[in-house]
Amino acid sequence: MFYSPKEGWSQDALGATQVSRLRETLKQAAKSPFYHARLAEAGVSPETIRSPEDIRRLPLTTKDDLRSAYPMGMCSVPSRELIRLHASSGTTGTPTAILYTKNDIQNWASLMARSLYAAGVRPEDVFQNTSGYGLFTGGLGIHYGAEMLGCLTIPAGSGNTKRQLKLIRDFQVSVVHIIPSYALYMGSVLVQEGIDPRELPISRAVIGAEPHTEAVRSKVESLLGLKAFNSYGLSEMNGPGVAFECEEQNGMHVWEDAFVAEILNPETLEPVDEGEIGELVMTTLTREGMPLVRYRTRDLTRFIPGRCPCGRTHRRIDRIKGRADDMLIIKGVNIYPMQIEQVLMNIREVGQNYVIEIFQDREMDQMRIKVEIRDEYFVEDMRALQALQRRIASLLRNEILITPKVELVQHNSLPQTQGKAQRVVRLD
Amino acid sequence: MFYSPKEGWSQDALGATQVSRLRETLKQAAKSPFYHARLAEAGVSPETIRSPEDIRRLPLTTKDDLRSAYPMGMCSVPSRELIRLHASSGTTGTPTAILYTKNDIQNWASLMARSLYAAGVRPEDVFQNTSGYGLFTGGLGIHYGAEMLGCLTIPAGSGNTKRQLKLIRDFQVSVVHIIPSYALYMGSVLVQEGIDPRELPISRAVIGAEPHTEAVRSKVESLLGLKAFNSYGLSEMNGPGVAFECEEQNGMHVWEDAFVAEILNPETLEPVDEGEIGELVMTTLTREGMPLVRYRTRDLTRFIPGRCPCGRTHRRIDRIKGRADDMLIIKGVNIYPMQIEQVLMNIREVGQNYVIEIFQDREMDQMRIKVEIRDEYFVEDMRALQALQRRIASLLRNEILITPKVELVQHNSLPQTQGKAQRVVRLD
Ligand SMILES: [Zn+2]
Ligand SMILES: [Zn+2]
Repeated sequence: MFYSPKEGWSQDALGATQVSRLRETLKQAAKSPFYHARLAEAGVSPETIRSPEDIRRLPLTTKDDLRSAYPMGMCSVPSRELIRLHASSGTTGTPTAILYTKNDIQNWASLMARSLYAAGVRPEDVFQNTSGYGLFTGGLGIHYGAEMLGCLTIPAGSGNTKRQLKLIRDFQVSVVHIIPSYALYMGSVLVQEGIDPRELPISRAVIGAEPHTEAVRSKVESLLGLKAFNSYGLSEMNGPGVAFECEEQNGMHVWEDAFVAEILNPETLEPVDEGEIGELVMTTLTREGMPLVRYRTRDLTRFIPGRCPCGRTHRRIDRIKGRADDMLIIKGVNIYPMQIEQVLMNIREVGQNYVIEIFQDREMDQMRIKVEIRDEYFVEDMRALQALQRRIASLLRNEILITPKVELVQHNSLPQTQGKAQRVVRLD
Repeated sequence: MFYSPKEGWSQDALGATQVSRLRETLKQAAKSPFYHARLAEAGVSPETIRSPEDIRRLPLTTKDDLRSAYPMGMCSVPSRELIRLHASSGTTGTPTAILYTKNDIQNWASLMARSLYAAGVRPEDVFQNTSGYGLFTGGLGIHYGAEMLGCLTIPAGSGNTKRQLKLIRDFQVSVVHIIPSYALYMGSVLVQEGIDPRELPISRAVIGAEPHTEAVRSKVESLLGLKAFNSYGLSEMNGPGVAFECEEQNGMHVWEDAFVAEILNPETLEPVDEGEIGELVMTTLTREGMPLVRYRTRDLTRFIPGRCPCGRTHRRIDRIKGRADDMLIIKGVNIYPMQIEQVLMNIREVGQNYVIEIFQDREMDQMRIKVEIRDEYFVEDMRALQALQRRIASLLRNEILITPKVELVQHNSLPQTQGKAQRVVRLD
């Protein structure tokens, strides 16, 4: 059972909807000063779109475009028809702002409710939202969706772990929305205080807003004693509720009746082959206040091939693999550090730390990966170590398509990194 | 023109509505464990109510009752029918929680929209909400109302004055919701940065959440170059949107189709005489999730006699004069420190500081008010000083009904107080 029958629409029905809504979107976008000029310059109009693939004939939109159109150069309706503004913090440089009409807020809430439902959340759940509220979309975005779904929604906001835990217990909270790093912190508090997570009533978490690995998800699940579902969103596409995991926990369905998702090679701007990693580029299909055409999210992911056993027909994207800005080009192949991390973290012998060194050889970038090996595996037997080295190189090759130089080093021999690790080092 | 025709209903129509809704409220309240017992104990039922005055036959509810019923002992519906929770911070002792159904949230938003409209806010306004969001009702409460009214609503949240000012300018914000102390701070930032408030697009502020004097309102108005409207609410009665000033800026209309307001002597629990100050006691008339019967707000105010020129028939309460817990009894008369402050702050010769000393004489509390006089008025002429002293005592008598001992002292001779001044001192 789905929240909306649209979730089960055939690819044909979705494609036809995309075509008609793309045309509407172009018509609506052209009412803004920014797109009026941009679309004319590109020589495109609603008639340009005859099939979903025709979206490739439309110009791209970047974060810089958003900045240059600040505050309201991308608005397609008069200010009096807008009812909400969300903005980036703008601590560095020009901020960006997204503006919404009443219908936009309604549609967003309804996509959000659908997303939560896909992750198994039901009206009878008690839902605690630990996002900060205010200008950040994670607070109000998730809140409106949970309320629309009919959950008892607790706007706990961020921080104050003691109070979070008190509310969870006092109101029998069954679902939390939480960012992965805070979930890990909350888990460590449980350990410190000797609280068995099975005592807590929570059975589900929705996690998002930060790229994270499968290992982090598993850790969140075991520390808090629940199932964790990945969520994807960005304020440019409303906020949360753009793509969401279903009960299969294997990729996030992008709501293709509301967005067109493309995955492009960030260098050539051509679509990548099926299943390959690239930059996610998204177009709004229902937005009135501020439609965005082919917005470059800078987020890296891939389409997961095949159909999802849950029956939803909307394509799935994989967890976010990092930022397009992090991409390396080695021997003509695009490689993202997150891919390397994912392979290494699944090899038992590998320790906590590694570094990707980039150096020049014959005017080409070359890559060497130094990997710390756990003490118990760092044996004197040179042949065993060489076998391990070959195995790691071969596992990496499966993922990144070239065979990298791998160097095994002892535990604690690489510089310690704090927080978001700076794993890529350029040697000049 | 009103937001809702109910605002102009005759007293008869309001009274009839109150009677039928009070009966409904008693029926609904009795579904909660707390009121099931409390109402039975008091021997009251819906049939007890035949006229609006019969409300006096119902038992009172206190903050302690709320605490004892935490978490859900006052809920009149099953948990699955609730969609929102707001809670007090509970930093000291047991927290209190208010729970809302979908209709409760809808009704609250609609009272809030009506309130903003009464203060002159219109759908074409750009509205910035500087309340903290989350469990505190000032964020989401004001937000839902402003959005329902159709304003472009900016969920700025609290703090970050630089960003607040940037948003105000970039989006031509015409109305802000702001607590008085933060408004004064923002005003001081404008002065520091040499910004002329007339350069800013804001023309209105809604101020509430903190008791404040008319002098503070005037200062907010002149510092920010706008009109400021008083607002009253408390989370037990939803949150903001309980009583609001209209364009007359002379008292706050209590929405009497949604609440019954009484003003009682906090000692005798009998109604005070018309226009006298007492404790505001409120009953919800439309709440499903958690109706409250005769809740003692501890807030001190009075009904403003007469009809409002704006045409709204709902009675007005005066600005909050302080907390019932602050009440002094001198010579059998109830006196609230805020009354004394209001009188003193309107006398030109009086400086910034004063203190109310309470001492025992013949086993009775006596009061002496020491008042700092501005240097330019603190003259050598004893007769002039005595005349000033008599004038102050007489102005105070008009307000507090007894003639207090007044002592004039030099500027800066009383101990300086920081923040919320501790003006009342008991000498033992
Ligand atoms: Zn699925
Ligand atoms: Zn009025």
